[in-house]
Amino acid sequence: MTKTPQYQEAPLWESIARDKKASRDAKIPLGWKLKPDQVPDDQLNVTNVPYECGILTPKELEITNSSARSLIDRILSREYTAYEVTLAFCKRAAIAQQLVNCLSEIFFENALEAAKSLDAEYEESGIARGPLHGLPISLKDCFQVEGTDAAIGYTALVNHLTSKEDESEITKIMRQSGAILFCKTNVPTALMSGETFNAIYGYTSNPYNRNLSSGGSSGGESALLALRGSPLGIGTDVGGSVRIPASFCGLYSLKPSFGRFPTSGIRDSLNGQEAVRNAVGPMGHSLEDIEMWCKTVVNSQPHLHADPDCLPIPWRQPEIPKRLCFGLLFDDGIVKPLPPVTRALLRAKTALEAAGHAVIEFHIDEPLFLDSLKFALYRSAAANSLHGVLEKTGEPWPQGYEILGNMANDETYPKATVSDLWKAQAKRTEYSKQILQKWAATKNSTETEREIDALIMPCSPWPASSRHGFIYDNYTSLWNVLDYCATTVPVTHKAMSGKIIHQKTWLPAQFPFRWLGSGCTRNIY
Amino acid sequence: MTKTPQYQEAPLWESIARDKKASRDAKIPLGWKLKPDQVPDDQLNVTNVPYECGILTPKELEITNSSARSLIDRILSREYTAYEVTLAFCKRAAIAQQLVNCLSEIFFENALEAAKSLDAEYEESGIARGPLHGLPISLKDCFQVEGTDAAIGYTALVNHLTSKEDESEITKIMRQSGAILFCKTNVPTALMSGETFNAIYGYTSNPYNRNLSSGGSSGGESALLALRGSPLGIGTDVGGSVRIPASFCGLYSLKPSFGRFPTSGIRDSLNGQEAVRNAVGPMGHSLEDIEMWCKTVVNSQPHLHADPDCLPIPWRQPEIPKRLCFGLLFDDGIVKPLPPVTRALLRAKTALEAAGHAVIEFHIDEPLFLDSLKFALYRSAAANSLHGVLEKTGEPWPQGYEILGNMANDETYPKATVSDLWKAQAKRTEYSKQILQKWAATKNSTETEREIDALIMPCSPWPASSRHGFIYDNYTSLWNVLDYCATTVPVTHKAMSGKIIHQKTWLPAQFPFRWLGSGCTRNIY
Repeated sequence: MTKTPQYQEAPLWESIARDKKASRDAKIPLGWKLKPDQVPDDQLNVTNVPYECGILTPKELEITNSSARSLIDRILSREYTAYEVTLAFCKRAAIAQQLVNCLSEIFFENALEAAKSLDAEYEESGIARGPLHGLPISLKDCFQVEGTDAAIGYTALVNHLTSKEDESEITKIMRQSGAILFCKTNVPTALMSGETFNAIYGYTSNPYNRNLSSGGSSGGESALLALRGSPLGIGTDVGGSVRIPASFCGLYSLKPSFGRFPTSGIRDSLNGQEAVRNAVGPMGHSLEDIEMWCKTVVNSQPHLHADPDCLPIPWRQPEIPKRLCFGLLFDDGIVKPLPPVTRALLRAKTALEAAGHAVIEFHIDEPLFLDSLKFALYRSAAANSLHGVLEKTGEPWPQGYEILGNMANDETYPKATVSDLWKAQAKRTEYSKQILQKWAATKNSTETEREIDALIMPCSPWPASSRHGFIYDNYTSLWNVLDYCATTVPVTHKAMSGKIIHQKTWLPAQFPFRWLGSGCTRNIY
Repeated sequence: MTKTPQYQEAPLWESIARDKKASRDAKIPLGWKLKPDQVPDDQLNVTNVPYECGILTPKELEITNSSARSLIDRILSREYTAYEVTLAFCKRAAIAQQLVNCLSEIFFENALEAAKSLDAEYEESGIARGPLHGLPISLKDCFQVEGTDAAIGYTALVNHLTSKEDESEITKIMRQSGAILFCKTNVPTALMSGETFNAIYGYTSNPYNRNLSSGGSSGGESALLALRGSPLGIGTDVGGSVRIPASFCGLYSLKPSFGRFPTSGIRDSLNGQEAVRNAVGPMGHSLEDIEMWCKTVVNSQPHLHADPDCLPIPWRQPEIPKRLCFGLLFDDGIVKPLPPVTRALLRAKTALEAAGHAVIEFHIDEPLFLDSLKFALYRSAAANSLHGVLEKTGEPWPQGYEILGNMANDETYPKATVSDLWKAQAKRTEYSKQILQKWAATKNSTETEREIDALIMPCSPWPASSRHGFIYDNYTSLWNVLDYCATTVPVTHKAMSGKIIHQKTWLPAQFPFRWLGSGCTRNIY
């Protein structure tokens, strides 16, 4: 007979979270720890800390401030070793973690060993292992890496270490390309928010202002990158999850159309959901780095064996016309952006015109009320899906997930049927045709004898949002629903906003950026 | 005040069907009518009738026995006019209609006018209008053509004439390519069966044996083609609807992967259904004709403005290795084919080996029980969808649709939810990976240092089925569910069976047939 405990035991989810968090924190070596009170809790902008904390050597600062492209070049020219590059980023990532809570899984030791062995191989053979030889790369938590969790913010998924054969295809491609994997980054519970917090690790904040969000769901990635704790990161985007954090943290990023980069083996919170396709996308510090990553993945030919969903479209280098014409969309007709966002758009317009390009206004006269589609497309099934995982450890619904929680907890709440989904999908297809025709019709107003080459528009109606203040993702999720490819380009640091460019990519004449031209190719645009 | 009628009025659907059928029949000129009793009702094989009925001149027989490719060549070389070619096919289609009830919409007059005007244009300019200059092409009823119905077997959709702007993209591409559209062909109600019959026109039978089915849902098309009432036809295939009728009637055909040919503007009975994608595919008398059609559609660049779902993949002419290796699948592990089908497979094997190619056995060890998926993927929502249209005119559920009818009429029957669909889709994706790996693993047993170049297997477990005897489509629908491209090649007339070839098309080394190489390109295979 067991005794009734005399004290209230902590709920299962709490003890799992506490242990997991402690285990992560223990992976930061003592020498890389900030001193207590070295950074006051109320210091909002912490981007100076890596320079001033004394943990990084001048050479390590030089390394971590370099572009991904130049790091590979310098490793190949033997100016740096992969080991010292990896060490520098592990240290800077550790600092970032202590400042903004951006990491989920830390595997610095494995990374350093892998780098050492890569250096030995290169010393011996003189041949690069692949196009990303020696480059440290950080991964969003949903990418599966052998020996680590991919808990995507759920306590119930903690302590389910990935086996070698279950690694994500992207993980395998990165390894085969010579990249060094060194950490995974924090996400919101089930990847279902535009900001990043969960019951295991808590909140990831914005390094430029710790009262603000770093975005989500790839918000651990964006916070880490903003502090240059990684030269290049990989996120996923089904509604803006690469673009929103990139825009909140001043980064370049790309969300491709479906079928361009393999999604196989990613831990997905909405398994089997296909109405809006999830996409893998890179996040980084320059267009050149984004291009390099895209080219590496496409050239690995993932359609051959890795992922039945990948398309057999090779990397292509389009010729960019001298004079381009951009569409400019100031607002979506539903939520008007704040002045800093509009200022960024106008600044982009001025810069493009000064460079000899044209910019014309583009309107969406009939905005798609995505919210009315979302119930059928995925919200009701998502509620079920989250409920099933949360209840395993008694984990409460996260703040901001009330709509889903109410759906799941109310037995009488009608569940979306397949018929509901069909109606929503038919509506989406009709809308998709309208937008295609609208885009095609710009040919009559561009003066280039082509349609607009790309569309510039806000990524979100505001710069980085306040904690638990993120509520509107239609500026980004519109392009997931329509399956266009889209990228973010930082415009102004002060406002911390970004602009998002939606681009038709299959018409060679419509590639404004050479890196994008081949970077993404489905339906497209 | 209206009088109560003294007699039982015919139900609405009956009177609509009667009038519509009479209107179709009236479009056959008197001179093209078979004499009463010219063909006994109990004559099963009617393929001799066009030769013996006296309606066609020797030249018209010569024209209608020609390949599509050679017809275009002869029109361009002025040996034939488009008008005389069109007239010959209109006459032979009229004969076919009287023998096997294969047509839904007849617009011979428009076709003859269009041909005349094309001839005049060519006489004047000497320039072909497009790659299908002057070629008559027949369309399955679901393709929308200005001024005609696209009732897809529903009485409720009769008398809803298509407007110019609502024409299907395929219809437009055919016109722009110089093809002459002259008729549409019969389908089962809502396109939902492997044989062809509906309340408007009744049953379409097989010209080789009128006690048998011509297949479905493109079964009007296959019956017409088998009687050479058309040089080339276009069907659609979401579960075998191009391949089953092609195999029942000894035709070549192709079902591409999603995104290769535009489906935009097709009258679809399951609007918004995307779990298994509907595909447009050609049906004809030779591989060369199938290739010509595919090339024409791809070269029209439908991804540019016509259809947001089309992929930006150009036509490619792969080099075929001298020695190929085929996989051979005798049965799917669920329903074993009848001896004539197995005989056809063995005959194909012998022929390929005699030509210097290799053939190795391929097994599917874990058959996918499609039936267990179909409820979630589309059956329950299809039931709702059909019910909604049928009840408008009081049309009864067609024979063989009992499962759907019972679902729709039973209020307590559980409706598939979006969560059910996700589970089914996740299962499908898992299976898709298994098959991809299995295919890739054949590399170790081919002796060509490549995977098998294509898979040869039955199209259905039997040759043409008896009336209302069609019940098993897993041999074909498997490849819709997995989105592989597939083709049919007739092997033996006697058995009237066909073999189906599933092919990986993105590896140039894996194209066994040049025409297929570029004909289809998505996920593939």
